[in-house]
Amino acid sequence: MPLVPEAVERLIAEFGRLPGIGPKTAQRLAFFCLRAPEDVSQRLSGALGGLHDAVHPCSRCYFIAEGELCAICSDARRDTGLLCVVEEPLDVLAIERSGEFHGLYHVLGGALSPMDGIGPDELRIVELERRVNADEVREVVIATDPDVEGEATAFYLGERLTRPGVTVSRLAHGLAAGTDLEYADELTVARALTGRRSL
Amino acid sequence: MPLVPEAVERLIAEFGRLPGIGPKTAQRLAFFCLRAPEDVSQRLSGALGGLHDAVHPCSRCYFIAEGELCAICSDARRDTGLLCVVEEPLDVLAIERSGEFHGLYHVLGGALSPMDGIGPDELRIVELERRVNADEVREVVIATDPDVEGEATAFYLGERLTRPGVTVSRLAHGLAAGTDLEYADELTVARALTGRRSL
Repeated sequence: MPLVPEAVERLIAEFGRLPGIGPKTAQRLAFFCLRAPEDVSQRLSGALGGLHDAVHPCSRCYFIAEGELCAICSDARRDTGLLCVVEEPLDVLAIERSGEFHGLYHVLGGALSPMDGIGPDELRIVELERRVNADEVREVVIATDPDVEGEATAFYLGERLTRPGVTVSRLAHGLAAGTDLEYADELTVARALTGRRSL
Repeated sequence: MPLVPEAVERLIAEFGRLPGIGPKTAQRLAFFCLRAPEDVSQRLSGALGGLHDAVHPCSRCYFIAEGELCAICSDARRDTGLLCVVEEPLDVLAIERSGEFHGLYHVLGGALSPMDGIGPDELRIVELERRVNADEVREVVIATDPDVEGEATAFYLGERLTRPGVTVSRLAHGLAAGTDLEYADELTVARALTGRRSL
C-alpha cells in the first residue's frame, strides 16, 4: 500500500510534468494544495480547465487570442509596415515589455532544428511569406533566439524573405544591459565589437 | 485592452499563488500549458479538482488519508508504542524515506509561533496528549524543525508530555550527512559537539 493516497500521487505526477518542476517541488506544490483552502486548488483547476476553450492562436500572427485576432493585431495604432518574427508567444511579451516596438508580430512556433526534425515546413514560414507579400510590409525584424537554432532560422529567413522594398533586419547582439564586461562570454564580446557603433 | 487574454492572465495569477512560483515562472508555466497538448492542462486540472474530495486528514495522526485512517495508521506491522511528532505531512515522508522509524506519527499542523498568533490551541496538542494517555505509548520522538519555532515547540511538548513510563526524545542535532565541516554554521558545530558520541 503506498504511503500517499493515489489522488495525491497523481497530482504530484501532473505537477512534475510542468517545465522546471522536479519531483521534490512537485511534492511540495501538491502538499501545499492539500493544506491551503480548497479554493486555491479549485481556482487553479478552473483556470487550467477552461484555458484551451477560451484561447487559441491569432489567425494572423499566431500570438494568443480570445477572438479571431489578438490584442496586438486588432490595435489600429500599430504600424502594419513593421513585422517582428519571434519563435514563441512568450517572446512577444519580452519585446512588448521593452516598449521599443510598435509594429506587428509573427510567431513561428519554434526554430529550425534538423536534429529534432524541425524543418521550414514545421514552422509558420509559408504564412509569414504570404504576409510579407500581401501586406505593405517595409521591414521584417527577425527576433529569433541568439542560439544555434535561432541563428540558423534567422539566416534562412533572411535569404527567403529578401525582395525589393523589404528590409530584413536582425536584433542586435552585444552586451546585456546591467551586466559585467568581465564576465561576458567571448562570443558575446566578439559580437559586441563587430557591432560597435560610433557615439 | 490587455495584451494577453483574460483566461491566460487568470492562469498566470493562479500559478503565482503557489509557493516558490514568482511572476516570471507563473507566466512560463501558463504559456507552457497553452503550447502543450490540451491533455496536459486537463489532467492537472482534474487532479487538482478532485483533490479535496478524495483526501482528508487521518482521524488518528492527521497525515493524509483516503479512508478513515492513513496508510501508516492502518499498517498492523507498525510499532504503536512509538510516536513521532512532526509539524507538517511532508515531514512524515522525510522520516519515512530514512527507513529508520517504524512507529506511528502525529502531525501537529505547524509549530508554536506567538508572533503569528499560533499558540498550543492552534496545534493538535490536545489530540496528541489524548493519544499519549490512551494508547500504550512508550516513547514520543519530537521531530519538529530545528528552527526557533520548532525548538520552542519541542521544549513545550517535552514539558507537557512528560509522565511516568513515557520517554520524550528529540531528533539529534549535528552535522548533515555529506556536508563539509568547514562550511557548517557555528550553532550546528556547537550542537554536534554537545551531542558527541563515543565510538
